[in-house]
Amino acid sequence: MHAMTDLPAWQALMARRAAIERFDLRAAFADDPTRWTRFQLRFEDMLVDYSKHLIDGPTFDLLLDLARQAEVEALRDAMFAGEAINITEGRAVLHTALRNRSGRPVLVDGADVMPEVTVVLERLRKFSEAVRSGAWRGFTGAAITDIVNIGIGGSDLGPHMVCRALRAFADGPRAHFVSNVDPAHLVDTLADLDPRTTLFVIASKTFSTQETMTNAGAARAWLVAALGDEGAVGRHFVAVSTNEQAVRTFGIEPANMFGFWDWVGGRYSLWSAIGLPIALAVGFERFGELLVGAHAMDEHFRSAPLAANLPVVLGALGVLYGNVLGWGSHAVIPYDQRLDRFTAHLQQLDMESNGKFVGRDGQRVRWATGPVVWGEPGTNGQHAFFQLLHQGTRRVPVDFLVAARPSIAEAAMLGPEGMALVEDAHRKLLANCLAQAEALAFGKTHAEARVELERQGLDGGRLEHLLPHKVFEGNRPSTVVLYPELTPRRLGSLIALYEHKVMVQGAIWNVDSFDQWGVELGKALAGEILPELAPDAPPAVGHDASTRGLIDAIRHLA
Amino acid sequence: MHAMTDLPAWQALMARRAAIERFDLRAAFADDPTRWTRFQLRFEDMLVDYSKHLIDGPTFDLLLDLARQAEVEALRDAMFAGEAINITEGRAVLHTALRNRSGRPVLVDGADVMPEVTVVLERLRKFSEAVRSGAWRGFTGAAITDIVNIGIGGSDLGPHMVCRALRAFADGPRAHFVSNVDPAHLVDTLADLDPRTTLFVIASKTFSTQETMTNAGAARAWLVAALGDEGAVGRHFVAVSTNEQAVRTFGIEPANMFGFWDWVGGRYSLWSAIGLPIALAVGFERFGELLVGAHAMDEHFRSAPLAANLPVVLGALGVLYGNVLGWGSHAVIPYDQRLDRFTAHLQQLDMESNGKFVGRDGQRVRWATGPVVWGEPGTNGQHAFFQLLHQGTRRVPVDFLVAARPSIAEAAMLGPEGMALVEDAHRKLLANCLAQAEALAFGKTHAEARVELERQGLDGGRLEHLLPHKVFEGNRPSTVVLYPELTPRRLGSLIALYEHKVMVQGAIWNVDSFDQWGVELGKALAGEILPELAPDAPPAVGHDASTRGLIDAIRHLA
Repeated sequence: MHAMTDLPAWQALMARRAAIERFDLRAAFADDPTRWTRFQLRFEDMLVDYSKHLIDGPTFDLLLDLARQAEVEALRDAMFAGEAINITEGRAVLHTALRNRSGRPVLVDGADVMPEVTVVLERLRKFSEAVRSGAWRGFTGAAITDIVNIGIGGSDLGPHMVCRALRAFADGPRAHFVSNVDPAHLVDTLADLDPRTTLFVIASKTFSTQETMTNAGAARAWLVAALGDEGAVGRHFVAVSTNEQAVRTFGIEPANMFGFWDWVGGRYSLWSAIGLPIALAVGFERFGELLVGAHAMDEHFRSAPLAANLPVVLGALGVLYGNVLGWGSHAVIPYDQRLDRFTAHLQQLDMESNGKFVGRDGQRVRWATGPVVWGEPGTNGQHAFFQLLHQGTRRVPVDFLVAARPSIAEAAMLGPEGMALVEDAHRKLLANCLAQAEALAFGKTHAEARVELERQGLDGGRLEHLLPHKVFEGNRPSTVVLYPELTPRRLGSLIALYEHKVMVQGAIWNVDSFDQWGVELGKALAGEILPELAPDAPPAVGHDASTRGLIDAIRHLA
Repeated sequence: MHAMTDLPAWQALMARRAAIERFDLRAAFADDPTRWTRFQLRFEDMLVDYSKHLIDGPTFDLLLDLARQAEVEALRDAMFAGEAINITEGRAVLHTALRNRSGRPVLVDGADVMPEVTVVLERLRKFSEAVRSGAWRGFTGAAITDIVNIGIGGSDLGPHMVCRALRAFADGPRAHFVSNVDPAHLVDTLADLDPRTTLFVIASKTFSTQETMTNAGAARAWLVAALGDEGAVGRHFVAVSTNEQAVRTFGIEPANMFGFWDWVGGRYSLWSAIGLPIALAVGFERFGELLVGAHAMDEHFRSAPLAANLPVVLGALGVLYGNVLGWGSHAVIPYDQRLDRFTAHLQQLDMESNGKFVGRDGQRVRWATGPVVWGEPGTNGQHAFFQLLHQGTRRVPVDFLVAARPSIAEAAMLGPEGMALVEDAHRKLLANCLAQAEALAFGKTHAEARVELERQGLDGGRLEHLLPHKVFEGNRPSTVVLYPELTPRRLGSLIALYEHKVMVQGAIWNVDSFDQWGVELGKALAGEILPELAPDAPPAVGHDASTRGLIDAIRHLA
C-alpha cells in the first residue's frame, strides 16, 4: 500500500504547482484550438466536457500517472473479481454483480453469485408485476395505489432519488419515502394516504435499524387501527431484509421478504432488492434498463484506458482541486428538477466512502481525503448560492448535468401550444446551464466591466465605485455532462459513473471506501442518552457538562 | 472602512493561533466546571449551547473584540435607522421594518415607511382570509383548495421553507411551489391539481424574472385550456410585484397585486407580501406570529451586549473557523424533518450575502469571506455524510437545531398508543441529536477504542488491524439550538437569528452583504446563448470553443 505523497507523480505535481496555480483558462482556449475536442469524452450518447478545468496536457498526464501509480487499476480489477477489497470488514464489493449482464460468472470465495442475483431479480419482477397489475390486493380487496418505503441512508436515498428522477416513466403506484425517526415524517406522509390501498416496504438489512423499525412499528399501528385486524399486516407490508426471524415476528411472510448480500454496501444497494420501490413505480422492465445503463458504465470502467476512462478522469480532476490546490468542496448541480435528490444521494456515496482520516494501512493519512459534496438543481441555485461560486473567495469545482431534450409526456395539458412552451422552457434551462459554465470559466475582466458600465451611461465616481463589484475573476472550473434525455438507462450510467469515480479517489487516497466506522460512535451514545431522556429517569450522569445540561433542559421543556 | 487583518483583535488572534489549534475540548470541560453555563445563551424559551466550540475565555473575548473593532454595532444601528448600508445599490436594508412591532417609526429619506407596511399587511390579511374562508371563488364558483407559488430564489425559498416548517399549523389550501425553469417542475406539479380550485401566486418584483414569467405563462395556458376562457385568469392568478403595467397585461387586476419596496432584498422578503403563501396556508394570524418572533430577535440583536448577543456570538464563531482556522464550510443540520428546506433557504441567505471577494472599499479582500453552507435533516444525515464529519480530514462546524417536544396533532391516527409512539420517536430524535454533538466534540481515543474492541472479544492481529479505524479524533465543534416546540413565533426568531448572523459576518469581512452582482454575468450570457439554441439558428459564433461545441452538440441531440 502506498502513501500518495510518496508517489513520483505526486511529487511531479508538486513541482508543477506554481504553474498549475497560474493556469489561465482564457489563455488556454486561445492558445489551443484543439482544447475542446482534446478534453472531452463520449460514452454512448453522452458527452462529458472537461475542457474548462485547470489542466493542460502535462498536468492532466500527471494526474493520470498518479492514478496509475496508486494502482487504481489493480483495485478496480480486484473489485470486479470479487476480492475482499473492503479490508476492514473483510468483504467483497460487488454491487456491479447486481447489474452484470455480461453472462460472466462473478465468484465470491469460489462460488458464482450470479444465480442468486438472478433468483432475487425474478422475485422482484413477479412481485412488482403483481402489485402493478392489481393481482396483489390489500386486506379489503382493494388494489394498491400508494407505496411507502420505510428505510434510511442507502435504503432510502438511492431508490428515492431514482423514483423522483424517473417521474416521466411513473405509471405504477405513487411512491413515498419515510426515513427520519422524527415522527412528523411518517405522520405527515400517512395523512394523505388510505390504509386500504397502501403498501409498505420495510427496508433494513438487519431489520433492526432504529429509525426504520420505529417508523415501521408506527405504520403498522396506523394500519391495524384503521383496518381493525392484525391479520391485515401481511397484505400491506413487505420487507427488504435478510433477518427472516424478525420479519416473520413483525407479521410479514417470508415469501414477501426480499434479500441481499453482505457484498452489497448500503450506499450501493439501489441495484438490489432495495430498488423494489423503483420497480413498483416505473415497472420492472425500466428497473432493468437502469441496471443495463449501470452495467454499460461498469464495462467502460473496467476496459477503457485511463486517459479515456470517465470515472478515472473525473476522479483525478477531484484530486487536482482537493489535494494539489487544497479546495474543500465539490458542487453537483443538475439542470434537471427531477434530479433534485441526486446530490443528496451523492453525499452519502461520496462522503461516507471517502470521509476517512485513516488509510488502508492503518496510518493517519497525511493528505486531504473526500470533499464536502453539495448542490441544488439549476436554475434554482443561480438565484441562491451561485453568487459565491462566481465571486466568493472559496473555490468550488462544479459538475453540471443536463439533458438536451425534455422528457414531458403531458405537454398537451398546457393547451395547443403545450409542446412549444415545454421546448421553450427547456431551451432556457439549457442556455442557463451553458452560460453558468461559461461565466465561471471566463469571467469578466476589469476592462470588460468598465466598457459595459460606460455603455450603461455610468461615468466618474459612480462608475469607479461600482466597477470592482462587477468584475468576475473567472478561471473557476466545471464539467458539463450532456445527454439526450433522462432515461432509466442513462440514469443508471450516471449513478455508476459517480460510484466508480468515488472508488478511484479512494484508491488514490488509499482509504477503504467501503466501510463506515465513523457512524458507530454517535449511534452508541444515542443508545446511552435515550433512557436518560425518559420523564421518570434519574438525572443523567456521565457524559460531559454540556450533554448533561442539554438532557436536563430537554426534560424541563418536554 | 477597515481591513479585517489590520484590526488589533485580528492580530491578537493570530498571535494566539497556535494555542487555538492546540485547544482541546476534553481538557476544557475537565478544567472548567462552569463551561456549560458560561458558554450558553437563552433567548426567550430557546437555549443556545456553544460550549462545544474551540474557544476559551481569551479567544472568545478576542472574537468579540474583532466584531467591536469592525464596527458591527455601527453598521447594525445604521441598518435599523434606514441608512443606505447597501452601498453598491444605494439602498436601505429594512426587512426589519416588515416585522416592526415596536410602534417606533422607521425612516427612509425622512419618511416613515411603517404606514405603507401596515397597509400591505392589512391587504394580505383580507385577501388570505377571503381565500381561506371560501369567500374568494374560482372562475367556476368553486373555492380554492390549492395554491401554487411561482417564484424563484427569495420569492420561493423563504415561503417554501416556512410552509413546510409549519405543516403542523396548515389548515388552509395546500401550498405548492414551482421555481425551476425546467418545464418538468411545473408540469409535474400541475398533474395533480384541478384548475377550477387552484390559485396561482406569481411572485416577481419586476414581473420579468425569466423563470417565473416562463412558468406563469405556461400555468396561464394550462388554466385557459382547461376552463376555456381567458376571463378565468383574473380569478386564478394574483401577483406579488411592483410592476402594475405588466401585471395588468397578464390579466391580473391591480387590486390583486401586492407590492413591496426596494429596501426589501429578495433573500429577506418572506416577511413581506412574498410571504402570502404562508398566510394562505397557515392563516394570517400565524404569519403575524412569525413576524413577532422575528421582531423579538431584532430587539435582542439591537440591544443585547455583544457577549450576550446571539447573532454576534454565532457570527464571531464562524470567523474563528473560516478565517483563523481556515475551514471552508458550515453545516446546518435541523433534527426536524419539517425544516428540510431550512438549509436551502440559508444557502441563499448566507452565500448570496457574503460570497464576495470585493470589499465595501472596492478592494479585493485579503481574507476568506462566506463559507459554503450545506446540510440535510438529522437523523437522515447520520446515515449519509456524518462519516465525513466524524472521521474526514475536512473540518466542518455544525449547527444542530432541535425541538424538545414534537408538534403532532394527528397522533391519534396511529391508534390508541399513538401519542406514546410519537413521543418515543421524538425522544429517539433528541437522543441522536445530542449524541452526535457529543461524539463530534469528544470522540473516542485510541485507548478507549482498544478497550471496546477487547470487550467485543477481539485480540491480536484482528484488533490491531481494526483499531485505527475505530478512533474518533473529536474536537469537532458544534452549536445546539434547543427550543420547546417549532411554532411560528419560534421559527421567526430562528430565521432572523441567521439573517443577523450573516450581517455580522459581512460587517467583519467588510463586504456589502446586501447586493448580488455575481448573479448578473450568467444571466447576460444565457440571454446570448438562448437564440443560438433555436433549431433554425445559424452556427454559434463568439464564446469559447467549449460553449460553441456544447451548443452544437445540443442542436444535434435535440
